[in-house]
Amino acid sequence: MIKTPVCQIVGYKNSGKTTFMNKLINYYTLCGIRVGALKHHGHGGEPNEPAFSQGTDSEKHWKAGADISGVQGESILQLSLKPKNPLQLEEILAIYDIIKPDIILVEGYKYASFPKVVLLNDLENDQLLTKVTNPIAIGSQNKELLHNQDLFTIPLLEVDNHISEIAAYIQKRVM
Amino acid sequence: MIKTPVCQIVGYKNSGKTTFMNKLINYYTLCGIRVGALKHHGHGGEPNEPAFSQGTDSEKHWKAGADISGVQGESILQLSLKPKNPLQLEEILAIYDIIKPDIILVEGYKYASFPKVVLLNDLENDQLLTKVTNPIAIGSQNKELLHNQDLFTIPLLEVDNHISEIAAYIQKRVM
Repeated sequence: MIKTPVCQIVGYKNSGKTTFMNKLINYYTLCGIRVGALKHHGHGGEPNEPAFSQGTDSEKHWKAGADISGVQGESILQLSLKPKNPLQLEEILAIYDIIKPDIILVEGYKYASFPKVVLLNDLENDQLLTKVTNPIAIGSQNKELLHNQDLFTIPLLEVDNHISEIAAYIQKRVM
Repeated sequence: MIKTPVCQIVGYKNSGKTTFMNKLINYYTLCGIRVGALKHHGHGGEPNEPAFSQGTDSEKHWKAGADISGVQGESILQLSLKPKNPLQLEEILAIYDIIKPDIILVEGYKYASFPKVVLLNDLENDQLLTKVTNPIAIGSQNKELLHNQDLFTIPLLEVDNHISEIAAYIQKRVM
């Protein structure tokens, strides 16, 4: 059971998830709110190896075959993990819980069950809304779509220029 | 309380800790034993930033200010963590426990309390033995020192060419 509040940012490819995540992270951080961020690497791919700066000892440990390789500096801990079976989102978030951020923002993992901001830039993509559980808002940059609040029972938020309002709304809903 | 068996590799600078760690990791991995490896970055320094490959979304999340930034691929999870207060070794190992390796090898953290192989290449450094808790063996590459088993009550092991014996000894003592 995850103690930290979680909000997912979901949307189809090129819906602006990473840009929106970065704006939220940046805004919360400036407010003194500590953020955990997690991204799902799409397309079944892997994060680019090496996970470590070349030539470091932790990279050597990884290359020697370690299933987990970590290095602790004075204030930063870096970990690469190769679990036997892919970790479930909840298992990853259990790691985040140890660090106790104030909020965890998750990019992707459409089919997980945490509260979600669904990014839509096109009304034709609105089937996504029916495919996910727990949507709390729709985010969009599309001015035409943004005039259609009456079509939806959850808030339709403009994600380009209203980050403080959206950040406050997310806080109210998940924290 | 850490469930996974832990063995520390300690020694002064240039005592061959990383080389020995890599040999052990490699040997255990070839035997099908899953290893978690952790290194303490000496000299109060930080792992080289960036923790992520340049231009990746998780690097962007980190730069936007996230206290934890992670990316999950199909089989690899990469995490960078910036805890409010430096994590204790036990807290880090609790993360390793989630992945359930068969053994955790820890390079450094001299003053922690787990069983330790103490690397000595010079009899003059043997004060290290009296400064650490729970030494289970001395490892050395120094042929002269290796003739002094009678001075010590714990095994004195040659670390260059006898990795399978040492690995078996560690397993017997900690697993």
